[in-house]
Amino acid sequence: MKDLAIGIDIGGTNTKFGIVDAHGNIIEQDRCLTNETEQVQDFIDNLHLKLSPMIERAGGLSRFAGIGIGAPNGNFYSGTIEYAPNLKWRGIIPLAQMVTDRFGLETKLTNDANAAAMGEMMYGCAKGMRHFITITLGTGVGSGIVIDGKIVLGHDGFAGELGHTIIRPGGRLHKGTGIRGTLESYASATGVRETALEKLTDYPEQESLLRDYSINELTSQSVFDCAMKGDKIANEIFEYTGEILGEALANFVMFSSPEAIVLFGGLTKAGDLLMNPTRKAMEDNLIQIFKNKVKLLFSELKEADAAILGASALVYG
Amino acid sequence: MKDLAIGIDIGGTNTKFGIVDAHGNIIEQDRCLTNETEQVQDFIDNLHLKLSPMIERAGGLSRFAGIGIGAPNGNFYSGTIEYAPNLKWRGIIPLAQMVTDRFGLETKLTNDANAAAMGEMMYGCAKGMRHFITITLGTGVGSGIVIDGKIVLGHDGFAGELGHTIIRPGGRLHKGTGIRGTLESYASATGVRETALEKLTDYPEQESLLRDYSINELTSQSVFDCAMKGDKIANEIFEYTGEILGEALANFVMFSSPEAIVLFGGLTKAGDLLMNPTRKAMEDNLIQIFKNKVKLLFSELKEADAAILGASALVYG
Repeated sequence: MKDLAIGIDIGGTNTKFGIVDAHGNIIEQDRCLTNETEQVQDFIDNLHLKLSPMIERAGGLSRFAGIGIGAPNGNFYSGTIEYAPNLKWRGIIPLAQMVTDRFGLETKLTNDANAAAMGEMMYGCAKGMRHFITITLGTGVGSGIVIDGKIVLGHDGFAGELGHTIIRPGGRLHKGTGIRGTLESYASATGVRETALEKLTDYPEQESLLRDYSINELTSQSVFDCAMKGDKIANEIFEYTGEILGEALANFVMFSSPEAIVLFGGLTKAGDLLMNPTRKAMEDNLIQIFKNKVKLLFSELKEADAAILGASALVYG
Repeated sequence: MKDLAIGIDIGGTNTKFGIVDAHGNIIEQDRCLTNETEQVQDFIDNLHLKLSPMIERAGGLSRFAGIGIGAPNGNFYSGTIEYAPNLKWRGIIPLAQMVTDRFGLETKLTNDANAAAMGEMMYGCAKGMRHFITITLGTGVGSGIVIDGKIVLGHDGFAGELGHTIIRPGGRLHKGTGIRGTLESYASATGVRETALEKLTDYPEQESLLRDYSINELTSQSVFDCAMKGDKIANEIFEYTGEILGEALANFVMFSSPEAIVLFGGLTKAGDLLMNPTRKAMEDNLIQIFKNKVKLLFSELKEADAAILGASALVYG
């Protein structure tokens, strides 16, 4: 009985992998450094070395339905990673085929944000939903869009780059893309830090606990800590972030009319500080037919597990 | 052989209807006033009266595969028109069922912009494409989104309201929705007129042929006429409109990564005056993986025919 799957999440720093059963339990997991080796083949050999004993302990290859991989710039159609800026491997890497060759198991690959959406649909708070969007608010902003129960891939496999949509035309410059005013420049950990630096500069007279941090130390976590202590500027930073995020979410709703939007990633630790202004701005900017209809949820999956679960869910997708 | 379909396009003023063969030829067509009668049933009886002889001339009911209707606020899932602001009929109208009852033919209904997208897919410049978006630039801005060869309807049937996405936060107030800075407030005939009035007020010293029109007479057509005569302000108006439209299109591309975007409706008569700045702004605001990939096209369907063709295409959708 093929009731197990392998999930592999390739990040810029760490690669997490594990064995997942049909109920979404991670039976065993481990991790390795993504950029430890120069060559992709060495990376795959290393994965195989670590996963082989886990596969044996779980009952051997015959129990496995396949392998799912989430990776930056991963393309589902071709099974390749294409020009991923945060990985050492250059150009177009036919990773799915290489993994299949090494493991002897069918391998599916997509980008990490799409894998996260698959995880939410199979094991998370979007279980049973056929129309939803996941937004990952981490160092950057990722997204996975599900319509009619399927991940939206677009004609070339690259759909769902909502972090790069424009929400403040002429606004903050995104260094990676050269585009101004995109969502990622505001509603990410990096964006929150930048908003903090801007506000501290714009209001030099106003006292704030944030001024106790050195510029290098200041992170979105510092802003959260200060906001929880009642710091005015820190609270305003989340208001501002939520307002921009909520406007962007309204735009997404008017595109695909999802049943829910699931927020995920580091910034969601801010809880109501972020959720309340986000929800208000979203509702304020929706036309009548969409108002008070769209569920705005925080993911309930543990971040460490979600990546592996999401990747493994591709096997059944 | 059921090789014919009836297409009905219900607009705020006119309802157009016709008989369409399997090759997309309109065999016969006619129109009536939408709001001539108070009651929906009277409207349907009137349609039946006009269509019956056409059906007979085409060979009788047995040749018809069904009826397709495009209507404002039309919902495909329920076959209803819901709270359409421009129609006399109030509340929720079960139009598809009522038409089926009167004609004895299966009836499908969706909103007018989705019907236009169906028409482009079956008979227009999106023929054979599985991923594209149509944007109607008329009095308002409508949209139909096709993913994997299917119209995106969303969980409630109302997806694809791209005219109401925000592209200039805090910008122009849309009187119908109360939302500021949405695409429809700029990239519609109404929006172009408003841009003209703004620019004429902002630059009172600058000469312009547009000043020869009375405020009541000034339309997007006047702006086009003046632009063709080399008027500087008129040309700037199209530059400005195109810039905003192009930014919005970039956002849509990053959502669903379509093969093409098809522009349709009155404003497209402006041709390159609108197309060039739109294309530039779109490309400038796309991330690398999407650049120089998305076809930006003007619809080749005649506007009078497209509505009927699109509605009739629902029968085969």
